[in-house]
Amino acid sequence: MPEGSMGISNIATCTAPVNIAVIKYWGKRNEELILPINSSLSVTLHQDQLKTTTTIATSRSFQEDRIWLNGKEEDINHPRLQSCLREIRRLARKRRSDGDPGLDSTGLSHKVHICSVNNFPTAAGLASSAAGFACLVHTLARVFGIEAELSAIARQGSGSACRSMYGGFVQWIMGHQDDGKDSLAQQVEPETHWPELRILVLVASAERKPIGSTSGMHTSVETSCLLKHRAEAVVPVRMDGMIEAVQRKDFPAFAELTMKDSNQFHATCLDTYPPIFYLNNVSHQIINLVHQYNNYYGETRVAYTFDAGPNAVIFTLQEHVSEFIQVVRHFFPPETNDGQFIKGLPVNCAPLSEELKQIGLEPIPKGISYIISTKAGPGPCVVDDPTQHLLGTDGWPKKTE
Amino acid sequence: MPEGSMGISNIATCTAPVNIAVIKYWGKRNEELILPINSSLSVTLHQDQLKTTTTIATSRSFQEDRIWLNGKEEDINHPRLQSCLREIRRLARKRRSDGDPGLDSTGLSHKVHICSVNNFPTAAGLASSAAGFACLVHTLARVFGIEAELSAIARQGSGSACRSMYGGFVQWIMGHQDDGKDSLAQQVEPETHWPELRILVLVASAERKPIGSTSGMHTSVETSCLLKHRAEAVVPVRMDGMIEAVQRKDFPAFAELTMKDSNQFHATCLDTYPPIFYLNNVSHQIINLVHQYNNYYGETRVAYTFDAGPNAVIFTLQEHVSEFIQVVRHFFPPETNDGQFIKGLPVNCAPLSEELKQIGLEPIPKGISYIISTKAGPGPCVVDDPTQHLLGTDGWPKKTE
Repeated sequence: MPEGSMGISNIATCTAPVNIAVIKYWGKRNEELILPINSSLSVTLHQDQLKTTTTIATSRSFQEDRIWLNGKEEDINHPRLQSCLREIRRLARKRRSDGDPGLDSTGLSHKVHICSVNNFPTAAGLASSAAGFACLVHTLARVFGIEAELSAIARQGSGSACRSMYGGFVQWIMGHQDDGKDSLAQQVEPETHWPELRILVLVASAERKPIGSTSGMHTSVETSCLLKHRAEAVVPVRMDGMIEAVQRKDFPAFAELTMKDSNQFHATCLDTYPPIFYLNNVSHQIINLVHQYNNYYGETRVAYTFDAGPNAVIFTLQEHVSEFIQVVRHFFPPETNDGQFIKGLPVNCAPLSEELKQIGLEPIPKGISYIISTKAGPGPCVVDDPTQHLLGTDGWPKKTE
Repeated sequence: MPEGSMGISNIATCTAPVNIAVIKYWGKRNEELILPINSSLSVTLHQDQLKTTTTIATSRSFQEDRIWLNGKEEDINHPRLQSCLREIRRLARKRRSDGDPGLDSTGLSHKVHICSVNNFPTAAGLASSAAGFACLVHTLARVFGIEAELSAIARQGSGSACRSMYGGFVQWIMGHQDDGKDSLAQQVEPETHWPELRILVLVASAERKPIGSTSGMHTSVETSCLLKHRAEAVVPVRMDGMIEAVQRKDFPAFAELTMKDSNQFHATCLDTYPPIFYLNNVSHQIINLVHQYNNYYGETRVAYTFDAGPNAVIFTLQEHVSEFIQVVRHFFPPETNDGQFIKGLPVNCAPLSEELKQIGLEPIPKGISYIISTKAGPGPCVVDDPTQHLLGTDGWPKKTE
């Protein structure tokens, strides 16, 4: 691209993953910097099933920063988006003023065009903001040639986004400084560490939209005395236990802590005033089913966790996946039997014993829309193939079918 | 009745009320003596709507202690029933050995026949054991001529029964002695103190039987770290606040504490492992409705509380009863409109504004079976009319139609 043309000066496309917390983040001690009241730990989900893709271009011809999400232009002035842009540009200027000889300063003063898409429906109720802000920050850094610790910037877009900056098992260390510089994500183990671990997202039937997590956690911090106790006295112990369980690949320990921490998070939502409910009758049934399944075998083979919505995320080991899916299919008979009930990683068909059909309560037809079968995966990736850019050579969103 | 005949030596009939806790009791520090991990406070409901009636007779002709509940003979060897019988007989013997001249010692060594009925269906999910054990202990004391503080004995039948030994607003002081002698109920204010206060029991449609409170609270004490914190750090402050709110008849303060404490109790159930769910989608809808109703008026006019089941107990003031009932009827349309939806104290019919019809979410038809309209009432009463005895002059249950 010749200098002085109206074309783009820099372009990059990256992808980033969703993550699911097994020690939950709920509550900020600083709302602007997004500093949490406790550390948390998550598993990064594989991008083959769930990912955000973002292309960012700079050009001297761009009149202003602009952003398109899933084909629709959105407000670039969203404060958290602005935080990320500001922090990345600050790093880029700092690097230039430090006189880094490798720096391509082209485009530093240019405006950006950002185009981002998710490969999963928003209706899946998965925290798309984590993948979205992780992808934004990773792509911005690529465009501006920054090679720094980026999780503290992603954190300012969406708290849990900092954990999507790494693959595998990731902790977000709460930090204690007022400026948040020590509130960072850190990989505990890479995605290759525990290949037998499998993850199933049980997408509950569309329900009314519950209260958003930003305002929900704000109200919880203001009103729940149990949340304060949890953050101060319970989570620090659980973080140690969870890190050890992950490192030792101790599934029962990992599973128990995961379930207990999901339950405690929802307990603090109920202790909020007015109370917040994210679990519904289908969620209750899934929880009961998991406990009765584990009880049937006399060992913890399956764990559930729920974020700020009714969808369950199930952890189990490869060897138990096919049977547990049959159990789910039995107690939540899907609308059709055409195989669209399971998406993602293939699952073998296993017969279900009559005994296992007796463990649960009354089946709830259509309680679960579909299941996404996945596993732990890597952190953000750069897409080298230029045909994959979401912006054309003119820097504007490509027409999509 | 001539001495030496085969007839009864003593007979008495009493009634006792149900109570509903506004600061909840959940968790024992001593399972055998039924000593709680925190104090609690309740409102005694009026016996015109909800009561247990018990007749107890003694006779030298009775071969053994026997008990009939709601027309069916039950096992007299139930340990908690035996605790109450043992404690009352111990007091009676003590009084005789102390040489009380007024004591009629006839029947002290005699066996008892106990016959008890509730005037409300067990299906209503109301804690009938509190009224039942309060009535048992009060009637036993009458038969054996005991005039002592009886709440510590009722407590050994069912923890919350000690609060049914008094009318009005009653606290159960947890006590600290190992022998439980200081774990007693005490009246905070009599039932005449706050005549404007009204109580509505919203009976949810029959659902599967949830986990019982005895085993539920045992599991909570064993597994919930939030429950421990609640008992030690939260409830003592709330008890003081609740007593003050009752004494000052400060409805908003009473209502807020009531709702927060109900929510926190259910939060500790969710923090139990495996978790316990007593609230269902109908309960969630009632909770949301109450908050939105209060929000609509910009003041706290209505409060909810839930025990170990999905039924809601609503507190409000006389002036708001008829409108709030219309709101409930709108969002939980009953099966029929024949007036059987409201039982108990009469409720005026009020029109419902179109605006109030917009405050809630989607109506749930038949979510509530019926409403019992009541108020605070007195403690156990003696029934003087001998025709009301549930046992005949022969000491056996009367034939009922």
